[in-house]
Amino acid sequence: MFVILVYDANEKRVQKFHKACKKYLTWVQNSVFEGEITDAALRLLKDELKEIMDDKEDSILIYKFRTKKYYERESIGVKKPSHEDMFF
Amino acid sequence: MFVILVYDANEKRVQKFHKACKKYLTWVQNSVFEGEITDAALRLLKDELKEIMDDKEDSILIYKFRTKKYYERESIGVKKPSHEDMFF
Repeated sequence: MFVILVYDANEKRVQKFHKACKKYLTWVQNSVFEGEITDAALRLLKDELKEIMDDKEDSILIYKFRTKKYYERESIGVKKPSHEDMFF
Repeated sequence: MFVILVYDANEKRVQKFHKACKKYLTWVQNSVFEGEITDAALRLLKDELKEIMDDKEDSILIYKFRTKKYYERESIGVKKPSHEDMFF
């Protein structure tokens, strides 16, 4: 399936979220990732994120599609996150 | 068309982003909105957001779909933003 994953995490955990998502999906912008993923891999990713997250503070939203259905992705403003140096 | 809109804005402008998006779309979680919208209305919304945003700091990502194609939206963790009181 194709997924779009958006997280909203406390700054302390943002780097961990980013690292976990990057193992399975393609980074799009800030806290948004997307990509083709199997059910099994998505389960693994969710398990990793649940380990990292504080469910009183953080949230994850996953949109699931049978195939890559969007016809356009438009990006306005900053293309790279301000904390890029943390990751690369 | 159906859109998913995600923004990442400096805290100072989050409330303005939220208010502008709410006029046109349905709030899903934190900085994520979705909904059916016409080309004309999306242009208006983008114009409003461009007025509000600082394009050196903030970013907006818009996924466009011809119809509502996702088959599942899964939400993990906090369902409401911590700054809910600001808005309602």
